[in-house]
Amino acid sequence: MDKLYKSKSKKFFANDHETWGHKWGYKDTRFILNDDRTVRMLGDRYELAGIDMPDFIPYVEEMLEVKIDPEDMLKQNEDMPIGPPNINEQFVERIKGIFSDDRYTFADDDRLIHSHGQTTSDEVYKVIYSRIDSTVDMVFYIESEEDAGKLIQLAEEFDVCLVPFGGGTSVSNALQIPKNENRMIVAIDTRRMNSIEWINEEDRRVCAQSGITGSRLEELLEEKGFTVGHEPDSIELSTLGGWIATNASGMKKNRYGNIEDIVENVTMITPKGDINQVEPLTRASIGMKPQNLLFGSEGNFGIITKATLKIHRLPEVQKFNSAVFPNWRTGVDFMYDLSHTNFIPASARLVDNVQFRFGQTLKARPEGLEKLIEKIKKFMVLNIKGFDPYQMVAATFKMEGSQEEVDYQEKNIARLTKKHGGLVGGAENGKRGYMLTFAIAYVRDFLTDYKVIGETMETSVPWSKIHQVCEAATKRLFDLHEQHGIPGRPYMSYRIPQIYHTGVCIYFMLGMSVKDVENAADLFSSMEHSIREAIMENGGSISHHHGVGKLRKDFMQDTISPASIDLLKQVKRSHDPKNIFGIQNNVFTD
Amino acid sequence: MDKLYKSKSKKFFANDHETWGHKWGYKDTRFILNDDRTVRMLGDRYELAGIDMPDFIPYVEEMLEVKIDPEDMLKQNEDMPIGPPNINEQFVERIKGIFSDDRYTFADDDRLIHSHGQTTSDEVYKVIYSRIDSTVDMVFYIESEEDAGKLIQLAEEFDVCLVPFGGGTSVSNALQIPKNENRMIVAIDTRRMNSIEWINEEDRRVCAQSGITGSRLEELLEEKGFTVGHEPDSIELSTLGGWIATNASGMKKNRYGNIEDIVENVTMITPKGDINQVEPLTRASIGMKPQNLLFGSEGNFGIITKATLKIHRLPEVQKFNSAVFPNWRTGVDFMYDLSHTNFIPASARLVDNVQFRFGQTLKARPEGLEKLIEKIKKFMVLNIKGFDPYQMVAATFKMEGSQEEVDYQEKNIARLTKKHGGLVGGAENGKRGYMLTFAIAYVRDFLTDYKVIGETMETSVPWSKIHQVCEAATKRLFDLHEQHGIPGRPYMSYRIPQIYHTGVCIYFMLGMSVKDVENAADLFSSMEHSIREAIMENGGSISHHHGVGKLRKDFMQDTISPASIDLLKQVKRSHDPKNIFGIQNNVFTD
Repeated sequence: MDKLYKSKSKKFFANDHETWGHKWGYKDTRFILNDDRTVRMLGDRYELAGIDMPDFIPYVEEMLEVKIDPEDMLKQNEDMPIGPPNINEQFVERIKGIFSDDRYTFADDDRLIHSHGQTTSDEVYKVIYSRIDSTVDMVFYIESEEDAGKLIQLAEEFDVCLVPFGGGTSVSNALQIPKNENRMIVAIDTRRMNSIEWINEEDRRVCAQSGITGSRLEELLEEKGFTVGHEPDSIELSTLGGWIATNASGMKKNRYGNIEDIVENVTMITPKGDINQVEPLTRASIGMKPQNLLFGSEGNFGIITKATLKIHRLPEVQKFNSAVFPNWRTGVDFMYDLSHTNFIPASARLVDNVQFRFGQTLKARPEGLEKLIEKIKKFMVLNIKGFDPYQMVAATFKMEGSQEEVDYQEKNIARLTKKHGGLVGGAENGKRGYMLTFAIAYVRDFLTDYKVIGETMETSVPWSKIHQVCEAATKRLFDLHEQHGIPGRPYMSYRIPQIYHTGVCIYFMLGMSVKDVENAADLFSSMEHSIREAIMENGGSISHHHGVGKLRKDFMQDTISPASIDLLKQVKRSHDPKNIFGIQNNVFTD
Repeated sequence: MDKLYKSKSKKFFANDHETWGHKWGYKDTRFILNDDRTVRMLGDRYELAGIDMPDFIPYVEEMLEVKIDPEDMLKQNEDMPIGPPNINEQFVERIKGIFSDDRYTFADDDRLIHSHGQTTSDEVYKVIYSRIDSTVDMVFYIESEEDAGKLIQLAEEFDVCLVPFGGGTSVSNALQIPKNENRMIVAIDTRRMNSIEWINEEDRRVCAQSGITGSRLEELLEEKGFTVGHEPDSIELSTLGGWIATNASGMKKNRYGNIEDIVENVTMITPKGDINQVEPLTRASIGMKPQNLLFGSEGNFGIITKATLKIHRLPEVQKFNSAVFPNWRTGVDFMYDLSHTNFIPASARLVDNVQFRFGQTLKARPEGLEKLIEKIKKFMVLNIKGFDPYQMVAATFKMEGSQEEVDYQEKNIARLTKKHGGLVGGAENGKRGYMLTFAIAYVRDFLTDYKVIGETMETSVPWSKIHQVCEAATKRLFDLHEQHGIPGRPYMSYRIPQIYHTGVCIYFMLGMSVKDVENAADLFSSMEHSIREAIMENGGSISHHHGVGKLRKDFMQDTISPASIDLLKQVKRSHDPKNIFGIQNNVFTD
């Protein structure tokens, strides 16, 4: 993984990397449709790879009520069209005078990679099948804080727009380039700043550069017996700077915390100087804390160059488990009870029946003894315990800690499962649930070729409004689908990936066939906007962890007061008066 | 407790209340020196009250190397001198036109009460034995958010300075009135806004008004079977608004969190409108979060009127325990190990030998069977286990939760105690440790009459620097004491009241005799400043929970970057351009 970082002779360029750049993830991995209509994940990067899965296409066709037809596919662009760069001569001349030419590029493909994130309809769909109109004009790869300061200084001097860029996995259109930006636009790629600056094992802190990916950070720490424990679904690709900029959440937040719990100090270089604390602070009372504003800054404000995070010794034990419940409401009641206890595992997730059945399809056709065992299990669950295969839901758990801690959690979770009429499902099913997490984005890209648009949406909602929000979002999707005469049946599925004291995160997966649908991407985008309205009208928040970007900026007025919005604009005006960081996310639209 | 709030016929006025107003706490409670040189706490409010304690004076005299002499006492002011109010005629005329006369007062004693907090040398010492020069001119008691908005509007119109006032327990000079403030100064007392607005039992949230004290909040919630669990030492007196304004911490933060973990929404009325979130938010990603700036706002910015907090069902079990260790370093090692586990109790504290012996003095002379048992215990600890009475330290624990949870903690804590060569001390000693917390401030006021100045200081420090900071602070105190030729010997004691992943809170208690010392209060204040320098040079923070106020403003430049300070000043300039909230705390000095 990330072998290029170890090679001193070759510097990182996004257009010459093992990641796709436009589609999600790695070039060695994608799903393909075999002639026998099984589906396989190519490569050997993931556990799911190399398995012919027979149930996937039947599931998709059943749920969407359309045929997956290799004769009727969207054509991917062969050449990725992009306009010529808008060059600010004086700026470029100064750059060339100061930096060697392996520090920047005007190459079309590198520019295009830096002109979008991973939002399905507005970004990925368009760059792959259509075109993106607004692009960056140059890509600069910073290698130090001094570089960041220099770029900002030059941008101020020559009125250039800067766009910080980490892993490019934004799903809020945060990386979408504003159409009305007329200045030269330079993407500041941070990924060459991917080192650990220091580790303090006694105090359990690490200082890392902002361009480090989650995987690399964990890899380097593991060598010393430590972990940060932040595991967003995008861990292989997303960076520390991006996590702070989006106020990210990770799978194991119950044990390790979300990004605001993990990070003790941030350094951001802004046009008015560096925002940081002189020392990382164990909990302190220092008055109003400017650092608190950097979480969720979404590229509007400066370049994050490094941060100090809490680290933990690798746990003695890591163990999976799972449980199935008769239906969604029972599963939610289980999660509610779990949230009040002292045995919440590092990760606890509940998936609905639709997602549970989807998970069942990402398996090989069982053979021989395995087939027999599967049949017995199924029989036990469906016939002996009386579970309805179209109602049952599943919870998956990952437990980490000392042997005693894990035993304590496992024992108590089993007891609570029984109390709610559930069945303990075992470690294998638990592990499988998490395995799918990293495959999902590849599924999206696979299905889009077959004219199926899929997207995820997420929200935080109080316990008392979970069902209301799920029902309202589902109804809105189905109403819009019918209203617009879209083929087949819409796909809606949800899970609860995080539980909290007062509420949960709900993570929706939506999809629909767009065969013969005009302006499919824009239509889908408008439907998503309307579903967000329905979510928020019923008590859901603007976002749990994906952030606001441009996708949800319309909902900021329903989230914070007008005076709060003014405050943020004032902060922007005072710290970036020339709008150097002109990405226009959140309330900072022109 | 707080009976006046229940009486509808009589509104709260600070000068007609069961609290002292100038000294700490309640009028029914103070320490007295008996003729036989035992010490007793009057009243019956606290468990410690009514007991004649024979070992207290000998301990104080031994530690300070001075005599406590009833013939040589400081004389408390009989009349509290205060200058006449500075009246802004137009403002007052408008107030009188809008509000009835039980909403405000110009009474000298009420004004004086609102002109200081509880910082020992700069505030309490001066108001009781000398005089405070800068005072408020009027006290206004708000009863609604509309009142707050109206006062701000009038203050802007007529250029009046407003000082929000809750429990008045600040120990950072935050409530000290700036000498250079020439406008009329109005204290805005929030304590009539002390209701609960709503409770949501399913989502486990409460919305309370900002003037509610900790005790009242817990009292009202207890009736419904809930608790917030925030227990600062000042819980009887301090208010929700004050906790937010100082980024407060509470004794049981391990279970319930500190204020920033507990509060999900804040409403603050500012000259530019209300800062708040439309709904309280379970963890969300909304971009830059203005609410994050309200924690630690220290009265510089607006009036906090209400907040939404997490609540918990009252725990099934509450249990104390304790442990003694051979010496401070061993105790710290124990706490370090404890911080890595999943059995950290709601509260875990370690006191040093000096404080341990101090705690032993706050007891009655044991008689009969009790005396025998005390002797046996002492023998066991000192002779059988070989503990040195001048080295040993104590840890106290409060455990809360289900029976299973508490058993799990207790069992594991006992095991860890043994591992570090400690002795489990039992529930009685544990409970006693916490009992003393509420008595300490009364001890301060008692001893000041005998020309002993005592104060607490606190800091947060990484694990690796605990000993360095304790030694440096101690050395600085002793050096200054000698340098200034102060009588007797300085008193220095510390405890670790809070542990965290990367470090701890250290809470120092300092004291010295000031017999025949000129300008004792100012000298003490300068010594405190120098000790803070020593603390910070060695890795301690500006404050763990008391905040910055005016007392520590000089250290902000060692805490956050210049650009961070500029950002805060910009926020102030844009949201309070006329400096209506002119208390000048933290970086907001003129």
